[in-house]
Amino acid sequence: MSRDQASVRMVDVARLESGCRKTLAKALTLVESTRPDHREEAERLLGAVEKNPDHSIRIGLTGVPGVGKSTLIDVFGGHIINQGHRLAVLAVDPTSSLSGGSILGDKTRMPGLAVNPHAFIRPTPAGESLGGVARRTRDAIVLCEAAGYDVIIVETVGIGQSEALVSNMTDLFMLMLLPGAGDTLQGIKRGVMELADMVVISKADGAMQACARLSAAEISHAIRLIQPRHEDWIPPVLMVSATEQSGIERLWQLVCRFRKQVRRDGRLSEVRCRQAWEWMWTETRQQLLDHLKADEAVRRRMDSLKSRVLSGDLSPSAAASMLVAQFRKQADGPCPGDS
Amino acid sequence: MSRDQASVRMVDVARLESGCRKTLAKALTLVESTRPDHREEAERLLGAVEKNPDHSIRIGLTGVPGVGKSTLIDVFGGHIINQGHRLAVLAVDPTSSLSGGSILGDKTRMPGLAVNPHAFIRPTPAGESLGGVARRTRDAIVLCEAAGYDVIIVETVGIGQSEALVSNMTDLFMLMLLPGAGDTLQGIKRGVMELADMVVISKADGAMQACARLSAAEISHAIRLIQPRHEDWIPPVLMVSATEQSGIERLWQLVCRFRKQVRRDGRLSEVRCRQAWEWMWTETRQQLLDHLKADEAVRRRMDSLKSRVLSGDLSPSAAASMLVAQFRKQADGPCPGDS
Repeated sequence: MSRDQASVRMVDVARLESGCRKTLAKALTLVESTRPDHREEAERLLGAVEKNPDHSIRIGLTGVPGVGKSTLIDVFGGHIINQGHRLAVLAVDPTSSLSGGSILGDKTRMPGLAVNPHAFIRPTPAGESLGGVARRTRDAIVLCEAAGYDVIIVETVGIGQSEALVSNMTDLFMLMLLPGAGDTLQGIKRGVMELADMVVISKADGAMQACARLSAAEISHAIRLIQPRHEDWIPPVLMVSATEQSGIERLWQLVCRFRKQVRRDGRLSEVRCRQAWEWMWTETRQQLLDHLKADEAVRRRMDSLKSRVLSGDLSPSAAASMLVAQFRKQADGPCPGDS
Repeated sequence: MSRDQASVRMVDVARLESGCRKTLAKALTLVESTRPDHREEAERLLGAVEKNPDHSIRIGLTGVPGVGKSTLIDVFGGHIINQGHRLAVLAVDPTSSLSGGSILGDKTRMPGLAVNPHAFIRPTPAGESLGGVARRTRDAIVLCEAAGYDVIIVETVGIGQSEALVSNMTDLFMLMLLPGAGDTLQGIKRGVMELADMVVISKADGAMQACARLSAAEISHAIRLIQPRHEDWIPPVLMVSATEQSGIERLWQLVCRFRKQVRRDGRLSEVRCRQAWEWMWTETRQQLLDHLKADEAVRRRMDSLKSRVLSGDLSPSAAASMLVAQFRKQADGPCPGDS
């Protein structure tokens, strides 16, 4: 039994729930592992821990690189902890699988939180598929909550798909933007503006302040054209400055107000249940497709099908039926090579 | 052999391509049929017809009921035909499966086109699933083009999902809005604004004109915050009045400019190829999921899995793995009842 395996085998639920950082770190390593026996153990652990959906707030935060996410989290996180909370910072980094990660958990970028006993920062497991990272992050949220962290911030960098994933595992989704007029804001990916429960304009200080005010007005205007995620919550737009520490308290007040509102009549847990169930189907679709794509006979036929679809010689739906039939045949046994 | 079947068997490709309306109508009935032998014949037909992707323009049009889609299509269509084109009007109606259809092809609502020999209007096949309707509409576009219709308008009514489907089978997606300030515009479904290549403010006449001008300004502003679908095309916002016939010529000029732009260096056919290939995968995912959901053993386990996921006793991804494993097992034969 490898050392790694030995260590992960030893995750003690009671100790995790007592808030032991070392145990939490171990538990996260366990859920990050792709080894089947580790996955099993991870499932046992996830099933065993106390789940307390209502006592926490899960905040998603996105923004292009350089917008100042880490700096905000460092300052904002300090404020949150001063209010008597315990904060965990996780990440879904779509670039981690490519470049090894452009964000995060990178402690050097959160010097304040890095040394704060009430903060827990977890780097992204690099080299994973986006879906894989997201799955582990979902599990990580549960474990951090079990360890007594009642504010979870999940940071992601602006790639449309990752933002949708993160908004689907958090209660409140924050979009962070640089001050700037419309054109510079086109960096916003499709649909992201519509995921936002709150928009934060960063670096609203010094020479940028006027520009930030303009952007805020512009965006408040634009956001009113979009159907809000919660009918009784119109996403506020606010300006913050991490360096001048302005807007931070207001930001936390808004988070608390949002939390209070969505928790009314158990709506928060409803939302989380729906998120879990939707995630189950997302995973199911993905796994089915992975199985199909891994199917030898399916792969043999793919090229000819593709050229026929692209030439218009075969309709996309007919091609799909052929693929699925081929896949289903496989399961029963060898299929006539009719490619 | 039923009359219906006999008639569909007789679709004559040459006659279809000569532009015979009766043959086109027959062909569309064929692709709308769900009978396996009809589907086969439809595939034969779709494979046989001349595909001429570059000579046509496919326009998607969406807007809430009452925004004036039919009225615009009637007037706009007349103008298009006066420019020497032949126009086909199709529909993807998400409500057709429920209510029997709130739109369209409803000839009485397009009196001008209904009697125009250069216009072909096709009602939605009602009582179908949205995916089914969309599939048939995709096939219908190909057949209309084969029959020499070089402008295809696909109308849909505002349900987010249907708009995504339509934007995925058209070259240009038009969003139609009523004059009105931000709040009234919240009827726009999530993400629809971001699909739009063009926004049309309807009923910009009489007392509404000032209001329309305000909306136009507001939306032009907002749309600049959104990443355009084509980096070199910022979606224009224009006002039209079907009753005063104003803005109609400008609308057509913009469509032509858009078409010219996306056709440069064969980008249009590239886009259409990508659309077809994406549709193939959408269909594949859907069919796989349908197979899984139809699986007896999977259904037997669903309730217990659901309650375990919702209670947090089982993680969504673990539940997904169980479902897929169950599904794959089925194919090999009976599975141990381990639910």
